Amino acid sequence: MGLENIRIVLARPLYGGNVGSVCRAMMNMGFSDLAVVPGPLDLFEEELRKMALGALPIYEQRSEFDSVAEAVADCGWVAGTSARTGFYRDQARPIREWVPRLLQGSETGKVALVFGPEDKGLRTEELALCTQMVQIPSSDAFPALNLAQAVMVCCYELFAATGQFVPSQETSPEATSEMRERMFDAWREALLGIGFMKEDKADHMMLGLRRILSRGTLTDADVRILLGIAKQASWCAGQLDTVQGEKGKKAPDHEG
Amino acid sequence: MGLENIRIVLARPLYGGNVGSVCRAMMNMGFSDLAVVPGPLDLFEEELRKMALGALPIYEQRSEFDSVAEAVADCGWVAGTSARTGFYRDQARPIREWVPRLLQGSETGKVALVFGPEDKGLRTEELALCTQMVQIPSSDAFPALNLAQAVMVCCYELFAATGQFVPSQETSPEATSEMRERMFDAWREALLGIGFMKEDKADHMMLGLRRILSRGTLTDADVRILLGIAKQASWCAGQLDTVQGEKGKKAPDHEG
Repeated sequence: MGLENIRIVLARPLYGGNVGSVCRAMMNMGFSDLAVVPGPLDLFEEELRKMALGALPIYEQRSEFDSVAEAVADCGWVAGTSARTGFYRDQARPIREWVPRLLQGSETGKVALVFGPEDKGLRTEELALCTQMVQIPSSDAFPALNLAQAVMVCCYELFAATGQFVPSQETSPEATSEMRERMFDAWREALLGIGFMKEDKADHMMLGLRRILSRGTLTDADVRILLGIAKQASWCAGQLDTVQGEKGKKAPDHEG
Repeated sequence: MGLENIRIVLARPLYGGNVGSVCRAMMNMGFSDLAVVPGPLDLFEEELRKMALGALPIYEQRSEFDSVAEAVADCGWVAGTSARTGFYRDQARPIREWVPRLLQGSETGKVALVFGPEDKGLRTEELALCTQMVQIPSSDAFPALNLAQAVMVCCYELFAATGQFVPSQETSPEATSEMRERMFDAWREALLGIGFMKEDKADHMMLGLRRILSRGTLTDADVRILLGIAKQASWCAGQLDTVQGEKGKKAPDHEG
């Protein structure tokens, strides 16, 4: 779906740990093209490895450039992540709004997502290279995201929109009405049998039970479990009747 | 919008740096209720402070519990983050699908979002406490997210859905048709004046220029800038005509 055409560009990152976290976030979300414009500081290999874990190859296969202009030179759309103030603020839109266009752009060419250093954000001449300005929604009270967290939110939004992730599915189908009714019949019999309700209140009680069991999905497998419980309770009640018949006792009445 | 009713529960976290990052992510997204079930390891205050930065108060105001059961005891809905395999996998749905229900739940009671330790995820008896199982979409090739990144994605999805974040807006309104036409008239005059096109090709050229300038928004402020350029070019062409009239020269022909 084109994610291999989307380049994550880090301009002058300060902390190796963050760069390692960026690699992990990228690999989690199916990205592989990392470009780094090195800053004045060494990226502390140890922290970087510790945070990247199995995503270290992303860093090892990075490309390096002397400037953001060079890092995005072969890209069509260039999306910059903006601070919340400044000249370009008016044009910034939340990442989720840009996702369809960025993915569309990645179908036919390279797309860049550019992130500034941890402390300052992108320079004006770097913002000028951008065809889109991206905002990440955050609280007014504490808006500044960690660099790797910002990369994660952007990559997550793009990945989620590709539809590559297939959520797990219930393997058991929804129970049919016929099965459900068989189960409710068994429960009616069981609840009468154990003395939870009497015949005159049974319809009302059964409506309550139907309500409780109809709030979500009720699969084939679920109905088989519930049917088994009811049948066992009925068996148990039958056994008690037999014993009581012998001893002349009566079951306790727990009806609400 | 109820985010103060959503508790982030960390079960036996291993690394202070991750807990610090969790605090920052929570505060970025408007969350404040952190519960920790301490694990066997100390949470290394230094790394924790370094990653939390201004969000340290979230950690200082945390509540601590001996078990997940106690940490969620007063919560209605309890959403657990699942590994991608295991007994509960069939019931897990992506975080975005749960967001409306979790927010709805937070309007009337406490809601918990429970995250297991970095290495193992939640225990079976902890998963059993959960009324919802949450998945975070990720690549099949490298699915395991860092703990703080997982918290960020969940908190981001919930925050984004509250509508609390108001994206920046263009402060200049879209230019009116009348203004645009005045601007295109000025460009026509300028392009003729500087000798970029001749009268017989002007209509065709102007259609091209309209196409270029109609691909996005064109604000009042934009149109004023473009109008100014055209008028200045016309003025410049007029000056040249005057000089050429004096010297008998001709403007060069740059028409495409």
